[in-house]
Amino acid sequence: MPETWQDIAARKQKQRADQIPKAWLLPSSSHPTGTTDSSSGNVLDVPRKCGILTSEEIHITEDLDATALVAGLATGKLKSVDVVTAFCKRAAIAQQLVNCLTEVFFEDAVARAKQLDEQFRETRKPVGPLHGLPISIKDSFKVKGYDASVGVAGFCFKPATTNSALVELLLEQGAVLYCKTNVPLTMMALDSHNNVFGRTLNPANTVLTAGGSSGGEGALIAMRGSPLGIGTDVGGSIRIPAMCNGLVGVKPSHGRVPYAGQEGGALAGSSKLGVESTAGPIARNVRDCEMLLRAIGEGRPWLFDPDVLPQSWEQQARLTRPSRGQPLRVGIVRTEGHVTPLPPIQRLLDEVARTLQSSTLPSQEAIEVVDVDISRLGPQLLKVFNGIMSIDGANTWFDHIETTGEPLSPWLASRLRRRPQKALDEVRKLQAQKLELQTEFQKVWKEGGGYWAKDVEITCGDRTLDAIICPVAPHPVPPIDRWNTTNYTSAFNLLDLPAGVLPVRTFLESDTKGELPKGDPLNGWDKINQGLWNDIDRKVYVGSVMSVLVVAPKLMDRRLVESMAVLGKALAPLREGSGRASKL
Amino acid sequence: MPETWQDIAARKQKQRADQIPKAWLLPSSSHPTGTTDSSSGNVLDVPRKCGILTSEEIHITEDLDATALVAGLATGKLKSVDVVTAFCKRAAIAQQLVNCLTEVFFEDAVARAKQLDEQFRETRKPVGPLHGLPISIKDSFKVKGYDASVGVAGFCFKPATTNSALVELLLEQGAVLYCKTNVPLTMMALDSHNNVFGRTLNPANTVLTAGGSSGGEGALIAMRGSPLGIGTDVGGSIRIPAMCNGLVGVKPSHGRVPYAGQEGGALAGSSKLGVESTAGPIARNVRDCEMLLRAIGEGRPWLFDPDVLPQSWEQQARLTRPSRGQPLRVGIVRTEGHVTPLPPIQRLLDEVARTLQSSTLPSQEAIEVVDVDISRLGPQLLKVFNGIMSIDGANTWFDHIETTGEPLSPWLASRLRRRPQKALDEVRKLQAQKLELQTEFQKVWKEGGGYWAKDVEITCGDRTLDAIICPVAPHPVPPIDRWNTTNYTSAFNLLDLPAGVLPVRTFLESDTKGELPKGDPLNGWDKINQGLWNDIDRKVYVGSVMSVLVVAPKLMDRRLVESMAVLGKALAPLREGSGRASKL
Repeated sequence: MPETWQDIAARKQKQRADQIPKAWLLPSSSHPTGTTDSSSGNVLDVPRKCGILTSEEIHITEDLDATALVAGLATGKLKSVDVVTAFCKRAAIAQQLVNCLTEVFFEDAVARAKQLDEQFRETRKPVGPLHGLPISIKDSFKVKGYDASVGVAGFCFKPATTNSALVELLLEQGAVLYCKTNVPLTMMALDSHNNVFGRTLNPANTVLTAGGSSGGEGALIAMRGSPLGIGTDVGGSIRIPAMCNGLVGVKPSHGRVPYAGQEGGALAGSSKLGVESTAGPIARNVRDCEMLLRAIGEGRPWLFDPDVLPQSWEQQARLTRPSRGQPLRVGIVRTEGHVTPLPPIQRLLDEVARTLQSSTLPSQEAIEVVDVDISRLGPQLLKVFNGIMSIDGANTWFDHIETTGEPLSPWLASRLRRRPQKALDEVRKLQAQKLELQTEFQKVWKEGGGYWAKDVEITCGDRTLDAIICPVAPHPVPPIDRWNTTNYTSAFNLLDLPAGVLPVRTFLESDTKGELPKGDPLNGWDKINQGLWNDIDRKVYVGSVMSVLVVAPKLMDRRLVESMAVLGKALAPLREGSGRASKL
Repeated sequence: MPETWQDIAARKQKQRADQIPKAWLLPSSSHPTGTTDSSSGNVLDVPRKCGILTSEEIHITEDLDATALVAGLATGKLKSVDVVTAFCKRAAIAQQLVNCLTEVFFEDAVARAKQLDEQFRETRKPVGPLHGLPISIKDSFKVKGYDASVGVAGFCFKPATTNSALVELLLEQGAVLYCKTNVPLTMMALDSHNNVFGRTLNPANTVLTAGGSSGGEGALIAMRGSPLGIGTDVGGSIRIPAMCNGLVGVKPSHGRVPYAGQEGGALAGSSKLGVESTAGPIARNVRDCEMLLRAIGEGRPWLFDPDVLPQSWEQQARLTRPSRGQPLRVGIVRTEGHVTPLPPIQRLLDEVARTLQSSTLPSQEAIEVVDVDISRLGPQLLKVFNGIMSIDGANTWFDHIETTGEPLSPWLASRLRRRPQKALDEVRKLQAQKLELQTEFQKVWKEGGGYWAKDVEITCGDRTLDAIICPVAPHPVPPIDRWNTTNYTSAFNLLDLPAGVLPVRTFLESDTKGELPKGDPLNGWDKINQGLWNDIDRKVYVGSVMSVLVVAPKLMDRRLVESMAVLGKALAPLREGSGRASKL
């Protein structure tokens, strides 16, 4: 009799648990009070207080960001073995609290760290810009010798025989991989739950979702169990967990970061007919994301994946703002026209626009704000995106799932079902519509293109936007399994524009005020969204982080993160005004 | 009763003829002796001798290349109206001799030239790097107010209401468009014949093919009826007419030159499921191709087409050879493994390798030659390319053709037929295979990748090739309607590598020597190819131009043309040794 999915999951979870040394196990008193009741558990402080970490390990994991860590490692001030051990321990603690890991290879990591330290002792030089830095990666990346099961029972105990392209590059640049992180079943859900590894919780509030599909990354980094993680994003899967965990997450353009050689669960060639997923960083701040993207860009990424463009990070410098004298010109998008943001999100965008407008940064970081209305494009973007994402009618995923008969995860149960695969004519039409929308969206960046607010004075006629700011979602971080539409994020996958999440401030008591306008919802999605305001105890949102999405023109990934850095600085007054949450 | 295709063709040809002023009509004595017999007509000299052109016009069209013309125009030494008039006249003569034009808009062109001259008089500045330069374009480009019928009767008399993206860009850069050029029916044939405009002839030898699908461009430029033309290439359509007419032609990577908004005859979205066609220059030398690509690259081409990368020509500079001290390292590919090149082509590659090896160019242009064997990839590249090109089973083209009941062109008659459209699963598989081949081909560039000749000494282990040289075809320029396989060109469309044709020398009497090895042909294509040697009077090839294809890594378009310039210099001894053909 073949093994049941329950047996496989038990065996897999035991394999994972066995990788955690006894000394790193939490005393039962440190465990959260339970996750099924409505009490809002915040476990962010547990690692600091549980007594497992030394003070040096607390310092390494809390006070130093990834940029500071690589600086210390590159000069020999820090030893990789110490940094790696600290994060292994903290990741082990995080795993016990919020169930964020899948594959655990601490021993390999410590061995590699020692080897890198040895090499440094001999050469007095780092092997690359990521020398000795522990980096966590989403389960879909392949690492030789370990599963890339993406939480599917039928995929377990089939260790990868190759490394994903990005894994190869990160290793070449000196990184130390030590664990992989949890994902939702099918990776098309927005809560990271699957039958093999279970559900990842939001460490700041276990009632709220940790997001998905790179939810394990989000939770792990929020716990400071990783200085820097790599997720993937085809509709929001980097950005949504970044928002849910108060982190910075960047979805690059296709063609910037090697993506080849992953376990995506789809048939080979699927992405070429649909929307390309991209890999990118999740970290606690913008400079860490920039540091990782630079390390990748300087590592000749095009030699690892034929889809990557031969253009280093340095060569992207000229794609940043064309003339130094000009302000950073930002378009504010308040709604995508399909689902109206709830009152606190509308207020957030108002505050962001006002704060940027009155920003007193030095003149080389001056900011100009323009209202932009893309609401007539939103519904089309959603329709084409949904059409493309359902080309194969979920048949491949059902085939995978049915090999062991495991059930669908809760969020998927009501949403995913087998449908007929689309016909070639329909796929071709979707591709044509995608290209049409990409062409049309080029006008959004330009003065006179028909999308800037009517009250914007047309001056020289050739002004363009450097970036767009919009909501990440039409709602705050919602309770488990209640994430609504992805159109605010997925639109930019369809358009293939680089986009990153920037935390702004925490949700305050006063944010529970404000009512929806009277009148019917725009559509079914809008109605569900209104439920997240009207049919809920709004206090659940208090303390969660509110973020915005920053978007740049195609392939202007460096301009994106440079803009995000400036915008983050300009928005600091809002962060400070809301009281500094421990994770911001 | 609807108009027959014959009526449409007659009306269309009359429309075209009416655009040629009486004074530019050739006396009947200047016409070639007829094109259906076997006499080898060379009409290249007719424009110079027919008495229609002034000596100044002969000077402009013959002695000055496009680069010299824009230099003269930019400084006011030349007037656009003179340059444009000279090329309009010469194009009119070419049309009468080799039937290379489709749409003729000389009057518009002269009016624009006058306007540009006026602007120059006022500002003393050119409007852009192409100020006042006449440029000819393939019929598939749309120019407002003119047909883009691509030789299909059912498409005639439906003038375009928009300009193609590249047309917009060229106009912005100052170019003057004055005519469009002939193509084969369906643009998937390699002789430029269609029922509306008839057949374009090879002006150097009317018995040989002018090539296709940008055959009108090839013939027009060979006649010096255009200083610079734009073709498109999805399987060889720039490179094949460049070879047939002894010209330089560059097929860029996808994402370099705006291609959007053309009449390709295919359903919208098709290219996204298949292989992307690209637009590029055909000219008499490498520097003119480089000049055009620079003008496009500096014109912010990404604002015209969302598929174009935001990277100017200047920004591509760092993609040329990484270290100045190193030689240009060239891999010689003698066969793609599917169709063995005929003896003169093998000899040509031997000579090229030897000549490059013994090149005495100054050290900054030193060349290193490496034998490369990709023969195990050739058959797969062909299979996947053919699979992708037949996704829609030619149904769309048959639909277009059947609206008027016009017949297939001769070359297509035995080759094209309706087939069932492929299923989505098959298309997905073809895309996966394409990506696999692109991934595998990355190894070809690298020492130790398994493709360099066994006798190449592995040195530091990290040498890479800057370019590859291979045949353009396994045969010399063949007689009309006898072009065989396109795998030598189409492989690089499938791989999306930039590739350009470089003329080397003329085919000599002595080249008719050499026999095929005994033994069976490799396959049906190889057998047909052998027929081009064994079942033909080989003298037909004498005087035709022999060329090679130069290929660079993905998106290294600037490196490609810079390499072509160096290789062209290094190969000059071969050109001189073969006697300088009038068109080289």
